[in-house]
This record gives sequence, structure tokens and C-alpha cells, in this order.
Amino acid sequence: MRMYDIIESKRDGHELTDEQIDFFVNGYVAGDIPDYQASALCMAIFYEGMTDREIVRLTLDMAHSGDVVDLSPIPGVKVDKHSTGGVGDKTTLVVAPVVASLGVRVAKMSGRGLGHTGGTLDKLESIPGLTTSIDEQRFFSIVGEIGCAVAGQTGNLVPADKKLYALRDVTATVDSLPLIASSVMSKKIAAGSDKILLDVKCGSGAFMKTVDDAVALAQEMVRIGEGVGRTTAALITNMDRPLGCCVGNALEVGEAARTLMGEGPQDLRDICVELAANMLELADKGDIVACRSMARAQIENGAGLEKLAQMVAAQGGDASYVRDPSRFGSDACMRDVRSGRDGWVRHMNTERVGIASVALGAGRARKEDSIDPLAGIILQKKAGDKVTKGEVLATLHASSEAQLDEGEQILRDAYEIGDEQPQPEPLVYARVTRNGVERLA
Amino acid sequence: MRMYDIIESKRDGHELTDEQIDFFVNGYVAGDIPDYQASALCMAIFYEGMTDREIVRLTLDMAHSGDVVDLSPIPGVKVDKHSTGGVGDKTTLVVAPVVASLGVRVAKMSGRGLGHTGGTLDKLESIPGLTTSIDEQRFFSIVGEIGCAVAGQTGNLVPADKKLYALRDVTATVDSLPLIASSVMSKKIAAGSDKILLDVKCGSGAFMKTVDDAVALAQEMVRIGEGVGRTTAALITNMDRPLGCCVGNALEVGEAARTLMGEGPQDLRDICVELAANMLELADKGDIVACRSMARAQIENGAGLEKLAQMVAAQGGDASYVRDPSRFGSDACMRDVRSGRDGWVRHMNTERVGIASVALGAGRARKEDSIDPLAGIILQKKAGDKVTKGEVLATLHASSEAQLDEGEQILRDAYEIGDEQPQPEPLVYARVTRNGVERLA
Repeated sequence: MRMYDIIESKRDGHELTDEQIDFFVNGYVAGDIPDYQASALCMAIFYEGMTDREIVRLTLDMAHSGDVVDLSPIPGVKVDKHSTGGVGDKTTLVVAPVVASLGVRVAKMSGRGLGHTGGTLDKLESIPGLTTSIDEQRFFSIVGEIGCAVAGQTGNLVPADKKLYALRDVTATVDSLPLIASSVMSKKIAAGSDKILLDVKCGSGAFMKTVDDAVALAQEMVRIGEGVGRTTAALITNMDRPLGCCVGNALEVGEAARTLMGEGPQDLRDICVELAANMLELADKGDIVACRSMARAQIENGAGLEKLAQMVAAQGGDASYVRDPSRFGSDACMRDVRSGRDGWVRHMNTERVGIASVALGAGRARKEDSIDPLAGIILQKKAGDKVTKGEVLATLHASSEAQLDEGEQILRDAYEIGDEQPQPEPLVYARVTRNGVERLA
Repeated sequence: MRMYDIIESKRDGHELTDEQIDFFVNGYVAGDIPDYQASALCMAIFYEGMTDREIVRLTLDMAHSGDVVDLSPIPGVKVDKHSTGGVGDKTTLVVAPVVASLGVRVAKMSGRGLGHTGGTLDKLESIPGLTTSIDEQRFFSIVGEIGCAVAGQTGNLVPADKKLYALRDVTATVDSLPLIASSVMSKKIAAGSDKILLDVKCGSGAFMKTVDDAVALAQEMVRIGEGVGRTTAALITNMDRPLGCCVGNALEVGEAARTLMGEGPQDLRDICVELAANMLELADKGDIVACRSMARAQIENGAGLEKLAQMVAAQGGDASYVRDPSRFGSDACMRDVRSGRDGWVRHMNTERVGIASVALGAGRARKEDSIDPLAGIILQKKAGDKVTKGEVLATLHASSEAQLDEGEQILRDAYEIGDEQPQPEPLVYARVTRNGVERLA
């Protein structure tokens, strides 16, 4: 078998055989197939696509290119939740404790933030004492005892995806549905949970700009999950504006904690209930209506917050910060950004909000950058809100005035203020399961 | 400027700017742009194509990536002829002397054979004593004094094309019209002639399988030539059967010499007259009808053969071999391949004829292979000919019985013999100039 023939076959629109896909993945990880052939194949896949059979095979090959976590020592159903990446997305910090408080286990391996979207590890580590670098034994025992834990990746998980993603990232071959779907699902499969809920973001702050594209990606990922025996569902959610009001690590932990106290912004609370309900349904806790009620109850009765505090403590963190988020205090410098006119916030460029938060010190432009846990943005106005001239749009937090200057400039361009009230936008567009697509808006 | 953005822009169907193309070619030759980005761009070009402006810029950038030959020290008009590669194509050995005998200079830099098509250098070097490794000064003086010379490339010509072609060859990105056209024309431009005649082969033994594809390639190359101020014309010629009867190095030199004596096969003679006439017309020697008469006359009066003998002698070869090709003698082993049935040769797979000649020792499968100058095939029957059972189809020449066995097996499959007489096929399909496409068949 020759890699040349595999590239040519895909280029000419043919379906690759299982053996060809195995040859590619194994050869590429082993270093026998050079980057220049792999990138040519990725570009051909960009144009020609892949069939479901090809995608499932590619996903499985990547999932098994390294270690695969075996969660079977932990009793009960394990449900994973994966977001395709959004701005202000702190849902894991709300949803995992709510679900765990109802006996469904969440063994979450998460990543760090890069670019305009934050990472759950960075958010959690803004809590003094907390560590996400825990070994597998400790991770398993926290999940078994408390019900949920969030850790950084250990071991050699999906090396094929790591290598291929790094190549796609510099060859303009990231934006390919089969390659995105197989990348996400290979990691979820290697992470070992029985059931998977995907939160596919859609809009100006997300990779998928339209609902149709997001649905297509979700359908593909659900097909992959079902194809390898992991029950998978997906929600298509709105990322045309940031989720909640806070963007930044400690700010987002505080907002998550307040949401678990019943005090968070409504959009964040509603989406967390919907995500938790879907995870509970995947775990056979009841129908979706009953699961929504259960999730809401765990917020109202404080069980979710209690579970978050237990998890934080188990991971070495000072749980008093989640019981009283005001303990985080404020960053060295703060600035209000005010509206220059009367009107309505017609639209927000969510990606720019994320980029502004990076400029303030809340995120990383490059892998090796350090972050400022207290930096970030509190949005006082979001898309759909009325504003008057001089009113505060957002409050910026940073450790220097120079950062505030840069962040303000970027954030201002993220707001589009006009005369007419915009149409309200839905929070969840659709739900995709093995049974099909359910449009919710 | 970033290579990433160039790949993405082409991938999304946009036209690249001159600056982007310069950045790519210069960066790739300098080693600043890695192969994996170049191959991704080539695959995007395979799908998206290039505009005329992009192709001209790419060609010029490649032509100027290394040395450019300055033929101006040689007086008069210099006309180059380039064939896209065929089986049994010895036309240069006929056409260059004919044209030179009429005062039009041909400074031909040629390549070696690889795969199923032979190279003019290998053919010439079957003449005892002859060398094609001559330095520029000697090359110029032979062209100036005799009127024509054929040499191997000297200096660092078109390094961008060398590097890019090697990459395309292993990434399934050779079959792209803009990339083929710019590759051919960058070499012609760097080789320095004022006028260029292209012989674009079409059919089972050629890269372009249909007349329409060949015309499209020819039009693109003519546009490039005109776009950089080199008058360019192209003939689309038939490669559904080998040209002439001989395939193999000394065999082809002998057939070329006999053609110059007026004794060659008619298809070879006719196409050589047509090619020579078009070169003469490019050099403003008259209209095409007058140029055809001039070319024919130089064959009939022996001036072409005399010029070939002069060139061979000037390059150190023993000219008696072209005056009397029987001096080459025969290879150690010979075998007749006979027809198993009565009928008509309905079709020939010309590529297989070429592959059979490689198996006999006449060509190279890999660059480092050596060749047997006497090996090859004399075709007694070609497409369109009637055969009776037991009649000789072809005679094979090789240095061992094992080679004959392999060559025979391959050659047998190249003949398709059926009951019905096939339609005669044209030799020249079309002529492409700056004035448009003239269909000749």
C-alpha cells in the first residue's frame, strides 16, 4: 500500500477502505508518512468529504492511537459533556455538580484555553489551592466518592489527533466537517465515558457560524458515537453572544457559583438546566421534562453548589471561594466602558469579546503565555439590551492600564449599537440524537 | 504575510495576488516554507485552478528562481521545441537539423528519459563518442556555428520547479493544468529561446488523454508565453500509438536518420514536417504552406541529414552512425512477437509499449537505473494495420532472454486485435496560437 494512492483515491472522489485509513493513521503516528503527504490528504478530504463509514474508522483509529482510559473501575454510568468552545462558557462548573448530585458520574478531562475561548482547567485553577494535575488513581477515586472531577489529560491520549490537528492548524485544513468530527469524537472515545453530550456552539463566537452547519457537525458526531457504541446526543446552542455576563477565569467561577445559588444570569441558568437535563436523560434518569425538573431542583435546594464545593475541596481547593465568590476580590485595575449613544445592542461579535479578554490577560494568545486569574470582562449589556448614552456596557478587569487600553479598544468594536430593537434570539436551536434532529427554535 | 493565509485564500476560491505568489515561490525555494504547506496549496490549486494572471506570475517566479540562460550572444532567432513526452518520439533529432539547415537556430536543452517515455539525451548518447555534457560556452559556439545543439541542463535552472515537481510527484498533485503549464513554461523561459513551439501529446501514451484537455493545456501555455513576450504556438498531436516504428535509443536515432534520408515511416515524416514548418513560421520564414515545402525540401535534398551529421560530430560523436544506421548493429537477443489471430490492430496502449521498452532495458524505471542503448522494440504493426495469424507484430531487442520474456508479456497486452477495421486516426488534431485554436482533424 502506498500513501500516494490513498491521496489520489480521495482526490478523485473515491471512498477510502478501512485498510487505507488504518495505513494512514498508523503510518502517520509512527512517522513513516511525512507531513507533506498528510496535509495533501487533509486538503483532499476538505474538498471531497468522507462517508460515515470512513469517518467512524478514522475516529476509531485515532482514538486507539494511544492510551484509552478505562473508567469501568468507577461504578455506575459515566456521562461526559463536551463543548466545541465558546466565550464565557462556564457550564461545566454548573452542570457537572448538578448531575453528580443526582448520582450520575462525570469524569471530565479538560483542556486549557487558547485563543479567544477559555478552558475549564484555567477557570478552576483560579481557586486558591486547587489542582487539576491529578493522577488517574486519584481522579478515579474522586469521581467514585464525590461523583465528579475535572482533570488535565494524563498519559498519551490520541497522539494521532494531536499530530494531525497541529498539521491542519498550519495548512488551512481545520475547517473540514469529517476532520472536526473525528477529532472531537476520538478524544471523547479515548476519555472513556459511556455516554456523551455535545454542546455544539453556533454563531459569531463559534467555529460553526450557521445553525445548519452546526446541525450537520452534530449529526456526524452523533453517528460516530452511535457507530462505536457510545450513546451520544448534541445541543446546538447560541454563541452569537457570550454565555452569562462574565468572561475571565475567577469571574467565571464566581458566576458559576452564583448560578448554583440561583442568582446567575438567566441565559446561563437556562442553558445549564438544559445541558444537565440532557445528561440525566442520557443516563436514563427519566424523560427530558422530568430531568429538567430534577436539574432545577438541585439548583434551588443547594445540592449542586454543595457538590461543587466538595469537588473543589477534593481537588485541594479552598471551597470557601465558591460558597462566597466575593472572596476572589478584584484585579489591580478596572475600567467601565460606556456607550457613546442611545439605542439597542443589535449584535455582538463574540469572538472579539474573547480576544478582548485575552488582551486583558485572561487568556493565552500562545501556548506558553501565562494568564492573570482575576482579569476579564463583566458585560453589563448584551445583544438585545437597550442602552442610553453614557451607560456602562462592560467593566474591564486587568493588572495594568495598558491592558485596559487595548482591551477597551477591542471590546468597543464588538458592540454594534443601532436604533431598532433586534429580534430576540433563541438560546438552544436544536437537539440532535440518534432519532434525528429536533428543532427547538 | 503568512503562508497559511495564502493556502486559505486559494482554498476558498480567491485569486492570489502577485505578492502572495512571489512570497510562496521565493519562500519555498529558500526553505522558509515547509513542504507540508506547499503540498496543501498544490492540492487547493488542483481543485480551484488559477487565473491566467496567477499562472503567468507563478511561471515567471519559477523561471527566475535560478539561472536564466541568455542566448543573445548567439545571432539570429532561436526557436525551441518542447514535447510533453511520448513513446517513440524522436522528432527533435529530425526537426532541429531541418530547421537549422534553413538558418533558424535551435539551442535545445533536454532531459533524460524516466518512466515510459524516452529522453533525447539518452537517444543521442547511443552514438559512440557523443556527449551532451557540454558547458555553456561550447553549447553557444556549436549553436552559433552549426545552427543546432542538444545539451543536458547546466547551471541551476528553475530550482523552484525541480523542488515543487518532486513534491507534486509524491502528493498526487501533478495532474493540475495550471501547475503543468507553469512547470513546462518556466523551463522554456529559463532556457532562453525567443520563440517556442510546443508539441502537446494526446492519447493513451500521453498525460493528456483527450483532445479537449490537450487543447486547454496548450492554450494556457500559449497564453503564458505571449504573456511574457515569447511567441508561442502548439500542435496537439496523436499519441494513441507510438510515433514511427522504433522505440529504444539507438533504434530511434537510426529511424530519425532514415527519416532525414526520406526513408522513414510516413507518420514520423509527416509530423516532423509539420513541427519544422511551425518552427520556421514562428521564425518568420514564410507562411505555413511555404514553410512546409521548405521543410520537405531539406529532407529530400539531404541538407537535414548533413546538419544532423555536423551536430553529432560537433558534440564529439561518430557521424558515420547517422549516415549509415546499420553500423549500430543489433542487441544480443532478439525475438519476434507474432499475432495469435487474424484481424485488425484496433487499438494500442501506447503507455504499455513504453513500459515494455523499459523492461527490455531501453529506459529507466528509477533515476539511478542504467540503460542499454541497443535495446528496444521495432513495431511491424501499429493501430489500423491488418494482421494475419502468425504474422510478426513487433521485434524485441534486449541483452537477455529474461528481458525478452518480460517485454513480450507487457507488449502483447498493448495490442488490441479485433475483427473490424478501425477508423483511421489523425496525426495532428489542432494548432493553437495566440490567434486561437485551429482544428486540423
